[in-house]
Amino acid sequence: MSAEAVSGARQSTLRTANLGLVLRTVCAAGQPLSRADVATATGTTRATAARLADELVAGGLLDESEPSAPNGPGRPGIPLVPGASIAALGLQVDAGLLAARVLDLRGRVVAERVEDGDFVGSDPASTLQRLGALTVGLLAERPDLRLVGAGLALPGIVDAATGVLLRAPNLGWSDLRPADLLDLPLTPALGNEADLAARTVAESAPGRPGPHRDFLYLSGQIGVGGAAVLAGQVLSGTSGWAGEMGHVCVDPDGPACRCGSTGCLEQYAGRRALLSAAGLPRDAGPGELARRVEAGDPAARRAIDTAARALGIALAGVINVLDIPTVVLGGHLGELAPFLRPALQDHLRRRVLSGGWRPPTIEAAAALPAAGATGAALRALGDVVADPARWLG
Amino acid sequence: MSAEAVSGARQSTLRTANLGLVLRTVCAAGQPLSRADVATATGTTRATAARLADELVAGGLLDESEPSAPNGPGRPGIPLVPGASIAALGLQVDAGLLAARVLDLRGRVVAERVEDGDFVGSDPASTLQRLGALTVGLLAERPDLRLVGAGLALPGIVDAATGVLLRAPNLGWSDLRPADLLDLPLTPALGNEADLAARTVAESAPGRPGPHRDFLYLSGQIGVGGAAVLAGQVLSGTSGWAGEMGHVCVDPDGPACRCGSTGCLEQYAGRRALLSAAGLPRDAGPGELARRVEAGDPAARRAIDTAARALGIALAGVINVLDIPTVVLGGHLGELAPFLRPALQDHLRRRVLSGGWRPPTIEAAAALPAAGATGAALRALGDVVADPARWLG
Repeated sequence: MSAEAVSGARQSTLRTANLGLVLRTVCAAGQPLSRADVATATGTTRATAARLADELVAGGLLDESEPSAPNGPGRPGIPLVPGASIAALGLQVDAGLLAARVLDLRGRVVAERVEDGDFVGSDPASTLQRLGALTVGLLAERPDLRLVGAGLALPGIVDAATGVLLRAPNLGWSDLRPADLLDLPLTPALGNEADLAARTVAESAPGRPGPHRDFLYLSGQIGVGGAAVLAGQVLSGTSGWAGEMGHVCVDPDGPACRCGSTGCLEQYAGRRALLSAAGLPRDAGPGELARRVEAGDPAARRAIDTAARALGIALAGVINVLDIPTVVLGGHLGELAPFLRPALQDHLRRRVLSGGWRPPTIEAAAALPAAGATGAALRALGDVVADPARWLG
Repeated sequence: MSAEAVSGARQSTLRTANLGLVLRTVCAAGQPLSRADVATATGTTRATAARLADELVAGGLLDESEPSAPNGPGRPGIPLVPGASIAALGLQVDAGLLAARVLDLRGRVVAERVEDGDFVGSDPASTLQRLGALTVGLLAERPDLRLVGAGLALPGIVDAATGVLLRAPNLGWSDLRPADLLDLPLTPALGNEADLAARTVAESAPGRPGPHRDFLYLSGQIGVGGAAVLAGQVLSGTSGWAGEMGHVCVDPDGPACRCGSTGCLEQYAGRRALLSAAGLPRDAGPGELARRVEAGDPAARRAIDTAARALGIALAGVINVLDIPTVVLGGHLGELAPFLRPALQDHLRRRVLSGGWRPPTIEAAAALPAAGATGAALRALGDVVADPARWLG
């Protein structure tokens, strides 16, 4: 048995630890594995691997798929994949949308509802009741799934332990317990939207590493959220309130922010600020702004340059403090990345102390509406991958 | 045997893990422990604890001190304390000083030399030779000690793996290997001055937790260094270059910094910037500035207010991103903390998103010249505490 299979486990919890090891191995692989492959990858004996896999298959956490044609002598191994009947619910309320999404253990979206709207200053009770009703309809579509958890992504500061949303400036919400208003059969765990969206970059499916493991994520919404991710883990800080990059001060003499400070990053790079600076109506999309920049519109160009400068100042500070020199831009910032990147790179090269010999890289996240909802479901599924024994008989 | 004593250890490394557990228990206690106390604290049997302690005593990692008077029936246990003959060397080069300091495993300074000077723009070879000579003299004082390691604190960005100082703007040094110029019998591990100074707050002696475990440390030197500490660990980032808070941009239209950026925190809160703004010569101390503020000197007052505002803007950004709401001020910033604190607290309350309901706290570090040298020695001793078996026969 391998070091990982034994270490950290007292005799009594060896089964628990080893079930987790086998499930994580299959989830991380991103391709079907036979029981023999699992034995090799985990350093266990074939008999042990087979016994553990059987237990996970019986509990629905692994599925047996069709064997491919044999490519050698002997009976081909039955391919194991994460269980398709295990799923989690991700919810999101944002200034511009409501979303409910169900992901299975393979990371596939198996059902979703996304509704656009304007929820700035909305009534929390009616908005959350609408999300609840939409979710009940969604879950009714797939009664065959076993829901193992749920999460709710919100654009603000939450107290995960008590389930209280403390403050979401761009919704105008504060001090409320969303679970009380949602009226759902299961209580979603609260999370910050950007923290959860960042998870979709760190993890491409439950338990499977994504394209980056160390990065700063900026979530372009009405405002700007963020998350710092080190070794695949979102830095959460003392109370889970880390990542508020939208409220890093870029210019102390800048415009007042609704948070009470002045010159916050989101006053320059938030979607509403960008559109307004470009002379566009607030319901215009980043696509329209992009078209205007391409057409040589000077106001649109100035808006982009101002945003790039503000992003450069704020991100340089964060990179100087955290030494995480990869930036992933999400939301409208991701859509506008081709226009923002050249100036942003110049600012970072100049303002990051190590920028001269290791210039930070800037990437756009995959376009994904309501990435926070996906991240919320990934987090719930991650709990299963971390400790599958709890979900077995 | 306790969970901690067994977990994480394969049978073959059980002795290694358990020796570490016993040494850490004695180091963390901060008071003498008998073998029976060790058995209780580690959840091992008395026989096992005694055998492990005997091994550590034989190797000099633990000392037996005088038993106190018995306070009950039976023979009193012999008190165990960290070994006084085990020591490490901490070195520091800063813009204003050279330091060599020897700490023993109990965390006591057993020998030191600190020389003031002006090393801004100094020749690295002659400065490091001077430090080397000073160190050779220091070590000759205590030939009885067993040196287990050495570290060198530098005010800049280092590559610890290759032992190269990449850039120390305030010394004007770059791209050199200090070990080649020091000419010492042992090679010191390089570290950033603020990262190492922060260790003196996180740890009050090798293996003994200090007053704070989660905090932002600002090291007030000619410039301003910093470190973010979570759960007692300095956040090092991707390459160990984290914590450069002195180069967080406070005002993009501010004065040029020698790093290439503009309006960096250290342009307002660095020692030289503060003294200059107060109309004091660059070799004046923070004490003189403090006296002038107390005497109602308007230029001194303005310098303090400007520094407090800049610290507020920079620290608010860092706290918004990291959610570490405890700030420890070191160096001249620590000496000036009583004057800086009121305005700094106002700025943080206003600019930190959670500042309204959980205002960050601001403390001064204990005054300790060349805290980086102490931190460098603590780090080397920490390696022994983490894995004492390597230091036994």
